Amino acid sequence: MTNTEQLPTSSKTLVLRRTVAVGGSTPAYHDAALQDRAIPPLQRGQVLVKINAAGFNARDLWLRLGLYGPGTEFDSPLGGDGAGVVIATADADDPLLNQRVFLLPMRGWDKDPDAPESPEFSVIGGTKVHVGTFAQYAVVDRSDVIPTPEHLDDVHAAAWPISGLTAWRSAVVYGKVRQGDNVLITGIGGGVAVVALQICLARGATVYVTSSSDENIRRAIELGAKAGVNYKGEDWIDQIAKKLEESGSKTGRTGKALLSTVIDCGGGDIMMKTGPILKSGGRVVLYAMTSPPYQTIYTPYHYSRCQQLCGVMMGSRQDLIDATNFIAEHSVVPHVSVKFGKIVMKIHHDNASE
Amino acid sequence: MTNTEQLPTSSKTLVLRRTVAVGGSTPAYHDAALQDRAIPPLQRGQVLVKINAAGFNARDLWLRLGLYGPGTEFDSPLGGDGAGVVIATADADDPLLNQRVFLLPMRGWDKDPDAPESPEFSVIGGTKVHVGTFAQYAVVDRSDVIPTPEHLDDVHAAAWPISGLTAWRSAVVYGKVRQGDNVLITGIGGGVAVVALQICLARGATVYVTSSSDENIRRAIELGAKAGVNYKGEDWIDQIAKKLEESGSKTGRTGKALLSTVIDCGGGDIMMKTGPILKSGGRVVLYAMTSPPYQTIYTPYHYSRCQQLCGVMMGSRQDLIDATNFIAEHSVVPHVSVKFGKIVMKIHHDNASE
Repeated sequence: MTNTEQLPTSSKTLVLRRTVAVGGSTPAYHDAALQDRAIPPLQRGQVLVKINAAGFNARDLWLRLGLYGPGTEFDSPLGGDGAGVVIATADADDPLLNQRVFLLPMRGWDKDPDAPESPEFSVIGGTKVHVGTFAQYAVVDRSDVIPTPEHLDDVHAAAWPISGLTAWRSAVVYGKVRQGDNVLITGIGGGVAVVALQICLARGATVYVTSSSDENIRRAIELGAKAGVNYKGEDWIDQIAKKLEESGSKTGRTGKALLSTVIDCGGGDIMMKTGPILKSGGRVVLYAMTSPPYQTIYTPYHYSRCQQLCGVMMGSRQDLIDATNFIAEHSVVPHVSVKFGKIVMKIHHDNASE
Repeated sequence: MTNTEQLPTSSKTLVLRRTVAVGGSTPAYHDAALQDRAIPPLQRGQVLVKINAAGFNARDLWLRLGLYGPGTEFDSPLGGDGAGVVIATADADDPLLNQRVFLLPMRGWDKDPDAPESPEFSVIGGTKVHVGTFAQYAVVDRSDVIPTPEHLDDVHAAAWPISGLTAWRSAVVYGKVRQGDNVLITGIGGGVAVVALQICLARGATVYVTSSSDENIRRAIELGAKAGVNYKGEDWIDQIAKKLEESGSKTGRTGKALLSTVIDCGGGDIMMKTGPILKSGGRVVLYAMTSPPYQTIYTPYHYSRCQQLCGVMMGSRQDLIDATNFIAEHSVVPHVSVKFGKIVMKIHHDNASE
């Protein structure tokens, strides 16, 4: 084993602990319990990561609310996003030693373009993988870390993996966003939406956004969005259409400005709403379906324009490497804050030698 | 002008002629009128094609029934699919002279992957393009013919362009059918479905089919389909699921045999029906939407499996070149018959010198 300093033997870790509601009738709100967990000796191919920052995701809440489904595993460390530094490696001369890295947020999906290769596919954090980032340290296979790009500190790297991967597949792999495209991103403010905005801008697209918060729209425009509308207005799609028209861009073959891609977190009537301002061959990408009636309808109108509809949930290790190379090349820094972009916490280490 | 023989000066041509219903209340059944049309002198870049065979499409019927919409143009030659030989060229030493060719069935879509580049996009036959294949001769730009692969005679080449292009985009461009995939093709018997079956088989896929005709299913199996079911049975999707299970193939990451692509002509409940046996990241491609209620519903079930839904209508010139190269390489011959595959008519030429 290779290491540069006195290694820790235990790790303060936030663990998902089952809570049974009194009487068994009301929904349980499972505990996040802080435990001191022993760090096992490194096996061949493993590295020990000192975690300096961890990002929050909606799934961390769902796990505690009992809404995460069969993927939930109690007594498993919480947290899917984390970044830090490799402080020990099982194999001598492993170039990962002392490298800044972030953790691969899933297991079992290496590079298949469509779906995980493995029946054992799982996100980390609160699952059977028994790896979580709400901890001081994590032992993982060396292939389960990715070097952090130089332009990101650990806090911003911890904001990246899950949201970035989902945004990358939404914008690039499925959304095929290219230079000069007009893109609509709904619900700006959420972690995926904001980094999708940043990726689309870096690809040279013009981006329109919606939000229920005028403040979020203002911040999106500060980041580079062309315009935004508040979707609490019933005519929000007409407002987007008007802004497209005012842009003077001519992307449709009829010389009308049209959207190429819609990156949406709602579902519901998004296809009906956006169809008329989406170009022929354009794409609606859903990275969540949070709006009643929890379905979206595809009609002959969409068919006659060869419009596409697809769902996106995270992606492969290869996608995350591609996405990370892209943000390194374009100096994209994921947005970290409480209400716009990602929430990230710094992990406390009281061992002065680290 | 270069030519090898006495050139014709006129061409017997089937032309779409407007019929006004008596009283104006019942729908008109427009005429297909045989006219002797003068062949204009070739302009620079043009070629004169002697048409030996022409393929039928549903659109030929829709045009006569007044159902083709605003694309309809009266007094325009009918017919979108045709093959023959270049008997004259405007430019000396044009290598197309005496070449066997088929006609590009549309104008205005060169190579954009999503949609036609031109606002003037149109299929030929009964439209503003004023070129049709239900004729003895056609004058077209030299870029609007594609050399016929050696393995196809003119009758089979005339069965190819519109159906082949639609099938290619359905199976390959959108459907992404690869070696080892399980594919479902509904409504086997139609021109697009049969050539899609042939393309999928040539790509090494295992293909399941449905039809309302047991005879069509039998013929599809003769062509190489693994199995088929009659969709008049209400449990047809369960029958397909059973045949997949019996196949012993293990394509899903759970070790279960699943479909990768569905190539469908109906729409309606196809997404709900096939979702459970379609792999994660799998695709439902609609090349028509003929089933009530003329819409298809995408639910969180499909989203959670990253399943995709898209419509396909023909494709670009580049797609047709790619598809033609593929069938040349794999010796795919489009199926010509009255009830299975395409209907093709031979064009009569009474000039003995031709």
